[in-house]
Amino acid sequence: MLASEIEINVRYAETDMMSIVYHGSYLPWLEMGRTQLLKERGYPYKELEAKGLFLPVIEINLKYRRPARYDDTILVRTIIKEKPFVKIHLDYEILKEGELIATGHSVHAFMNSEGQAIKAPRDFLSALGSEFQ
Amino acid sequence: MLASEIEINVRYAETDMMSIVYHGSYLPWLEMGRTQLLKERGYPYKELEAKGLFLPVIEINLKYRRPARYDDTILVRTIIKEKPFVKIHLDYEILKEGELIATGHSVHAFMNSEGQAIKAPRDFLSALGSEFQ
Amino acid sequence: MLASEIEINVRYAETDMMSIVYHGSYLPWLEMGRTQLLKERGYPYKELEAKGLFLPVIEINLKYRRPARYDDTILVRTIIKEKPFVKIHLDYEILKEGELIATGHSVHAFMNSEGQAIKAPRDFLSALGSEFQ
Amino acid sequence: MLASEIEINVRYAETDMMSIVYHGSYLPWLEMGRTQLLKERGYPYKELEAKGLFLPVIEINLKYRRPARYDDTILVRTIIKEKPFVKIHLDYEILKEGELIATGHSVHAFMNSEGQAIKAPRDFLSALGSEFQ
Repeated sequence: MLASEIEINVRYAETDMMSIVYHGSYLPWLEMGRTQLLKERGYPYKELEAKGLFLPVIEINLKYRRPARYDDTILVRTIIKEKPFVKIHLDYEILKEGELIATGHSVHAFMNSEGQAIKAPRDFLSALGSEFQ
Repeated sequence: MLASEIEINVRYAETDMMSIVYHGSYLPWLEMGRTQLLKERGYPYKELEAKGLFLPVIEINLKYRRPARYDDTILVRTIIKEKPFVKIHLDYEILKEGELIATGHSVHAFMNSEGQAIKAPRDFLSALGSEFQ
Repeated sequence: MLASEIEINVRYAETDMMSIVYHGSYLPWLEMGRTQLLKERGYPYKELEAKGLFLPVIEINLKYRRPARYDDTILVRTIIKEKPFVKIHLDYEILKEGELIATGHSVHAFMNSEGQAIKAPRDFLSALGSEFQ
Repeated sequence: MLASEIEINVRYAETDMMSIVYHGSYLPWLEMGRTQLLKERGYPYKELEAKGLFLPVIEINLKYRRPARYDDTILVRTIIKEKPFVKIHLDYEILKEGELIATGHSVHAFMNSEGQAIKAPRDFLSALGSEFQ
């Protein structure tokens, strides 16, 4: 298992007229979680795309337990449990003051610059760590 | 079964550097689908909130099959299959030129203005139609 | 003078906790106004970029007079007053039920696919109409 | 003069198909700048609204010099130069690796919970510092 954490400060722009965070505003948070995880593994997603490897989202799921509000400090925990093969599955835990307020997952394909589905590259798996090789 | 359709023109703002629509940009489309469905039933969500009935999103799921792009015309079909009780489940089909490019669902709680979970109000069910009463 | 109009239905996602439309949500509306104006001139911006002509925003200005709210019908009027040379200046009027609720303008450079600033191409000016040639 | 700085990491969601940050994505950054400035003065905007003081945006202006890209580290400097009276004017400098890539300003009204325009409250001015009293 591989995990990474990042803290987010809720923006006013992310709220809606229900005075809580709009449910769609959580998706960029998950994306920040993925960005952080790959950066910590020495494999920034920015460089990955520059080298011609893309990880388009093919599925997204979120369950909302408790609302988040403007200026809250949110912790996003991003978790990889299984070795990716032609897809990568990421789990997310979203916490506020230690309480789990949402959970989710995303599934991504591996795609080359021609838009073709490929297998998880060997050096990508290496970057994730020994248990994923 | 109850269904409703709405057409959307993809905004430049909704794209990302992969030159396709950002996966999170679909969530407001689903929301437009729900808004349209309730409006067609003579029960605009705007009035619903004004009367103290809220339908916060408690789960969201999307599966992406084919990308959408800037200036595409997108059709969002919103479907209610089951009679809501303490939650309402909506299904979505997202089409581009007749082709299904994404599917999804959302689950919402019924909440009063005190933030308490309630059952689907009788007049809400009536508005959905005779099969949901 | 060249003008174009487009109607927008305010999304829930575009509101914030002040129960009105977030000021930043107006920017995609202006962008929809520009998209519509160019489409009406037979010169869709989508095709323009495909041909290697880009119009990046170099300045944006908005003045907000009255709030817009969820599910409002908004009219965006996009106006070109002067012949573009190395930049194009667009004015915007944002109306709700006939009342002007915001005004703004955007300035764009003309850029080729190498990212170099260029003059407004002759066929672009032709598309705008005889008074802009 | 009163100034405050905050660092932002560019999100993938904030980019568009021009492979740079969408011009509208800068507006939440300015908002984060304001949030940070007020927090540093011991006067969090969150508490301000809770007490019934609102600062709706009545004008926004941005000039873009150089693009920002995904995963860039952006510094937003928020500046108050003049004592607010019935409006508050904020200036912004947006930097990337020490280079100024955009400048802007926002103007806000002071509004009470009834939606009425008011003068800048005395304790708000005190929080800004002695030169603004």
